[in-house]
Amino acid sequence: MQRYFISTEYIKNNFALIEGKDYHHIKDVMRMCLGDKIILLDNSSKEYLCEIVDLNQKVSLNILETKVNNNELSSNITIAQGLVHKNKIEEVVRRIVELGATSYVNVIMERCNIKLKSKDDYKFTRLETIVKEASEQSERGKMLSLNGILSFKEFINDSKKYDYKFVCYEDEGRSNSNSIYNYTDDLMNKNILVLVGPEGGISPAEIALLKDNGFIMVGLGKRILRTETAPLMIMSIFSSLLDYKGELHD
Amino acid sequence: MQRYFISTEYIKNNFALIEGKDYHHIKDVMRMCLGDKIILLDNSSKEYLCEIVDLNQKVSLNILETKVNNNELSSNITIAQGLVHKNKIEEVVRRIVELGATSYVNVIMERCNIKLKSKDDYKFTRLETIVKEASEQSERGKMLSLNGILSFKEFINDSKKYDYKFVCYEDEGRSNSNSIYNYTDDLMNKNILVLVGPEGGISPAEIALLKDNGFIMVGLGKRILRTETAPLMIMSIFSSLLDYKGELHD
Repeated sequence: MQRYFISTEYIKNNFALIEGKDYHHIKDVMRMCLGDKIILLDNSSKEYLCEIVDLNQKVSLNILETKVNNNELSSNITIAQGLVHKNKIEEVVRRIVELGATSYVNVIMERCNIKLKSKDDYKFTRLETIVKEASEQSERGKMLSLNGILSFKEFINDSKKYDYKFVCYEDEGRSNSNSIYNYTDDLMNKNILVLVGPEGGISPAEIALLKDNGFIMVGLGKRILRTETAPLMIMSIFSSLLDYKGELHD
Repeated sequence: MQRYFISTEYIKNNFALIEGKDYHHIKDVMRMCLGDKIILLDNSSKEYLCEIVDLNQKVSLNILETKVNNNELSSNITIAQGLVHKNKIEEVVRRIVELGATSYVNVIMERCNIKLKSKDDYKFTRLETIVKEASEQSERGKMLSLNGILSFKEFINDSKKYDYKFVCYEDEGRSNSNSIYNYTDDLMNKNILVLVGPEGGISPAEIALLKDNGFIMVGLGKRILRTETAPLMIMSIFSSLLDYKGELHD
């Protein structure tokens, strides 16, 4: 069944309204009719099973049933990535939405190949659409939140609010490495931050600062991953581990 | 350092030769000079550190040092995927090379959206280039092997040679699911086959046949993954688990 995230202001009592792009998607792309059913999501893990009662200029819907979406991971996972090219950001974001990430942020680091004139260089409109569509398709209960671009200093300050802070560091992966699996028993119901470097890697000065600020170095194996593969690998591991641990607890 | 897989026939005693595309890459793209060093790989987990001694029409190299590449996983993992569009195959293959997969095969299944007139419809030349380049960049010791396209019956027959056979099945993931982590302690040094369905999913008849032939159903979590994300998730889990277990053994 088609799913649409909408703002809570469009949901009142047993009634909901859809305008704009989603209206056109429902009417012109999906060619839905009166009586057809869709699921609405309000970005707080609530799902509303709805029936279309009017398609004139807006979609009007009766809410038939409200239930809780249980597809979110038990922990919040933020993926931070050294600033890379837009295309790569889009690909990473699309996939980590599917894999259950909570938020995504880019960090300006020493060895980034991309130089920003101003943070406005990177427009996030297209990225927001990607997040919304991927969240709907993968049946998430909440949309990933896009946290923009931070300087390395801002990022370090921001990192203080997390329970666990990991950084994926190549040198660790290639020698005797520290694995995320060493933390398996303590990852449930946490706020977790994971930093992946940019294409050029993480500088020794940055690594020193990250260590000083409580970041744990982890390796992702002996093979060299591209910067857009690393976040998918991390999210795959966290997502599968948290689901597994969650079911053991149930 | 640049890496190139070459055929063993071009390696003799302490001398090696590079022709064709790699010759042009070394000379015209990388603009290397006499005395520059590269690493050659013979697809059997051997690495040859070489020095360029001639660049006239071919690259002639002196082998300075031979060592073993330890970047391969301890188990062989074959990813089988319901036949999908070429672009998706290319993307999947590129990433599972980075993540350490041994081989990749496509399977014609009931709910494939792609209809093949003949197996020759799908040319694998471009895919072979992708495998070679991704293997070099990710510093693999062996290249992933491309096993073409099989009918479902051929696939079932072929599956008999594996120690473990898994199939990722959506219904399992969404209810109380069986996790790959239930097999963690027994995955080292095995031949493992993992099947991912096509976009349309796996039919009940196919699932029955897979069960009859010893396939173990596993889920990949509560969120809906696109067919090109599932193989990356599986390989991420296997790759990280095998590396972790390997280091515990060392």
